[in-house]
Amino acid sequence: MNETDRLIASDKVEGTAVYDRQGNSLGSVYNLMIDKVSGRVAYAVMSFGGFLGIGERYHPLPWEKLTYDTGQGGYVVDLSREQLEGAPSYGRDETPWGDPAYGRGVHDYYGVPYLV
Amino acid sequence: MNETDRLIASDKVEGTAVYDRQGNSLGSVYNLMIDKVSGRVAYAVMSFGGFLGIGERYHPLPWEKLTYDTGQGGYVVDLSREQLEGAPSYGRDETPWGDPAYGRGVHDYYGVPYLV
Repeated sequence: MNETDRLIASDKVEGTAVYDRQGNSLGSVYNLMIDKVSGRVAYAVMSFGGFLGIGERYHPLPWEKLTYDTGQGGYVVDLSREQLEGAPSYGRDETPWGDPAYGRGVHDYYGVPYLV
Repeated sequence: MNETDRLIASDKVEGTAVYDRQGNSLGSVYNLMIDKVSGRVAYAVMSFGGFLGIGERYHPLPWEKLTYDTGQGGYVVDLSREQLEGAPSYGRDETPWGDPAYGRGVHDYYGVPYLV
């Protein structure tokens, strides 16, 4: 019910682990930000549950950055933990998406073209 | 954190009510089926929690059929309860998405072009 070759369920993506290219765990997917107009998944928001020692923070990644690896059962990103730590992020009570420039900043940080 | 003018979080869509054009509640969104290749939301899967008296069933709708109505705080579909009852659906333990023809059947039922 949750997956086919082509489709995957949103509630299956949520909670899925994210690894770097060396197989180190970086965190997991918290939720997806969906573009209401195009119907596209714009961002996968990763959560860092506290292993950084600074409380849970949410790190949006352009969806294009994630590749699903069936062997690991999780997403792989070509990013280091340091790159993620320095990336745009927000705390539980912050609402950065209200600023239209926020998404552009995320794309710019990861070097992904911002096409809207 | 969950919504902007343009973006909406997947975990906010999940659980959102779905109404017909007359404002009658039809059910709620259970999850979204995302096309892994295109990154698009292909289907919003509605759940009928038992008011039909036949146990919970999942009714996938092409995403294009849903319009968010800020006044009602939910999605509106131009469908009657009878149309939904007669639509393709599956139970909790069924896995219809493994059949590549299933999605086409859903689109055909609702008269939405199946573009893959």
